[in-house]
Amino acid sequence: MPEFFNVFAPDVALRTLLERLQRRVETAIVPTHQALGRVTAEAVLAPEPLPAFPRSTMDGYAVRARETFGASESLPAYLEVVGEVRMGQAPDITLAPGQAAVAYTGGMLANSADAVVMVENTQQIDATSIEVLRPVAPGENVIQVGEDVRSGEVIVPAGALLRPQDVGGLLALGITQIKVRCRPRVAIVSTGDEIVSPTTTPAPGQIRDINTYTIAALVEQAGGVPVSMGVVKDDYEAQRQRAVEGLSQADMLIFSAGSSVSTLIEDKPAFGLPGNPVSAMIVFRLLVRPTLYALTGCTQVPQPKTVQARLTKNIPSVTGREDHVQVRLSHLDGELRAEPVFGKSNLIYTLIRADGVVVVPLDQGGLYAGAEVPVQLYD
Amino acid sequence: MPEFFNVFAPDVALRTLLERLQRRVETAIVPTHQALGRVTAEAVLAPEPLPAFPRSTMDGYAVRARETFGASESLPAYLEVVGEVRMGQAPDITLAPGQAAVAYTGGMLANSADAVVMVENTQQIDATSIEVLRPVAPGENVIQVGEDVRSGEVIVPAGALLRPQDVGGLLALGITQIKVRCRPRVAIVSTGDEIVSPTTTPAPGQIRDINTYTIAALVEQAGGVPVSMGVVKDDYEAQRQRAVEGLSQADMLIFSAGSSVSTLIEDKPAFGLPGNPVSAMIVFRLLVRPTLYALTGCTQVPQPKTVQARLTKNIPSVTGREDHVQVRLSHLDGELRAEPVFGKSNLIYTLIRADGVVVVPLDQGGLYAGAEVPVQLYD
Repeated sequence: MPEFFNVFAPDVALRTLLERLQRRVETAIVPTHQALGRVTAEAVLAPEPLPAFPRSTMDGYAVRARETFGASESLPAYLEVVGEVRMGQAPDITLAPGQAAVAYTGGMLANSADAVVMVENTQQIDATSIEVLRPVAPGENVIQVGEDVRSGEVIVPAGALLRPQDVGGLLALGITQIKVRCRPRVAIVSTGDEIVSPTTTPAPGQIRDINTYTIAALVEQAGGVPVSMGVVKDDYEAQRQRAVEGLSQADMLIFSAGSSVSTLIEDKPAFGLPGNPVSAMIVFRLLVRPTLYALTGCTQVPQPKTVQARLTKNIPSVTGREDHVQVRLSHLDGELRAEPVFGKSNLIYTLIRADGVVVVPLDQGGLYAGAEVPVQLYD
Repeated sequence: MPEFFNVFAPDVALRTLLERLQRRVETAIVPTHQALGRVTAEAVLAPEPLPAFPRSTMDGYAVRARETFGASESLPAYLEVVGEVRMGQAPDITLAPGQAAVAYTGGMLANSADAVVMVENTQQIDATSIEVLRPVAPGENVIQVGEDVRSGEVIVPAGALLRPQDVGGLLALGITQIKVRCRPRVAIVSTGDEIVSPTTTPAPGQIRDINTYTIAALVEQAGGVPVSMGVVKDDYEAQRQRAVEGLSQADMLIFSAGSSVSTLIEDKPAFGLPGNPVSAMIVFRLLVRPTLYALTGCTQVPQPKTVQARLTKNIPSVTGREDHVQVRLSHLDGELRAEPVFGKSNLIYTLIRADGVVVVPLDQGGLYAGAEVPVQLYD
């Protein structure tokens, strides 16, 4: 059989594609508290230091550190407690020599105090005096201004995928809006004379559309917006028109059940995914998903979760071919085992019964039962 | 210092909590194509077999298998090609002895055919006859009715977290709606005299609310719906009222910056998360997240992604205490390294600069630099 197009190993294909992909999706300003999972369009700098005032990290007493030097259980330092600095309040107390003020975790220190003694290291004598049982160094139990973040520091780089803690950190600095990349829109064209909508009862020879919905969900999971272009018959002109229509309103085109070819059309990536649902999912994970993230400029593409497991059966392969074989995981005698799920082509339920994939590298002729192998888990 | 409440190791605390948690959130019927990430409320059975008709897995010729027995390159079987069965069509051809019909991948077979010969194993003689160069067994290159799924089989169990392939598989069977658990609603009460909204410029001694938003994003990530109850001052009665209000409209209550206590109030779980953002996140991952999934009856709680990395510094700990230490990952000489991020309490940015957490088990006094340890990655 002649080969009508060039064949690349998956990593070479992806590298080639990403090198040529210049395009980035548009940017948008969104409220920070709704930005979880979005990709930053530019670096964010701290507009102010954090904390903005020296904060106690302990419940205890704000003191002038030098007055505690040498203090011990046998020879404590006596200090007069002249008041407290309440949470959320600026201090209205200035310590004179020999004085201390109550300090709370996260609160400000009395003026002229430079350290906090933990309450556990003090002994209350009466309503207005304490013994300090251990010395503190200047700055001890205090977070200084800018110790968390300095003003002007890059707090989140461009291309970052925002996590819960990033959302919190941005809001801590009063950054209530943020410039992110729009979610890439992905036009999905489903093809095939035998394909009908899932709402239809198929006539003999027809099947319901599976791949469009699996692919749409995979797109959603990777932060994209699926745009279903419906089912098109196996007719060149009809498919070409639907492709043009899809590309005009999206950032990427996926042909479901075309041949497995990827290309760039007017700088927009276009993929033909195989009709076999298992193959479609594997090609999606290998090529489409990283390309979707690349469209947003994301520099931290989430990698598949991987576990080590022991193969229960041989996996035959051929040197020069990278095989992706689905496995089902189980525990036996405290060990994780991976059972290869072999199945004929076009069985959607082999995919549903599998927990992940084992890759047989290009240069290996197969994997032996008993080998410990990495399993890439399905999300 | 006396201890005012019982202290449990995290795994014991979680087990205790989950054993007592009987409550499940309500169920709802949703369109299957919008059910990604939802948890099934009941097992789903296949209403019909898949495939519903015998399908070819290859492009080639539908044949009566016995007529190919003994065929070889030197002694091929000659067959008359009497037509084709087109994709999406029922066959209008019945094979007589010595006949074959064109078959397509995913298409039906001509009547009375029981196998498919791959086109690669045939030689076209003229417009209406072929040579078959290899024998096929009955059923070869054919998926039989119900071979993917039998009618009545459980295709998705109760408590399953729906993945892209599950969505596709359900729709393949015409299941366009599905009964799932509602997303648990989580009331978040932020407390503290020093806390102000992120939209406000804090006065000296005040700080912007960080934890509510980090926690809300963590809830969202775990499939819940955060319900912000705003900031309440450090006043018992005000906090109690807000808690009652929150519980009345949610399935779970989180007090941000209470003490780290968890309990059940009228069968609804309630957590007091520490004010320190790092601690709050760790307690959330250890206790709140699994409880959120438990409320939906989910049996497949996603586990944190874990990688092995080499520690760059000692991590001191104390036997009898489980320590969770944040680390930053880097690559050096092809090896993954984990650098502990030590920081004073209440620094949000130590959380942002970290990639994950290393756990020092209860029974260990610390971990040594150079040790290879599992790192639980932040999502």
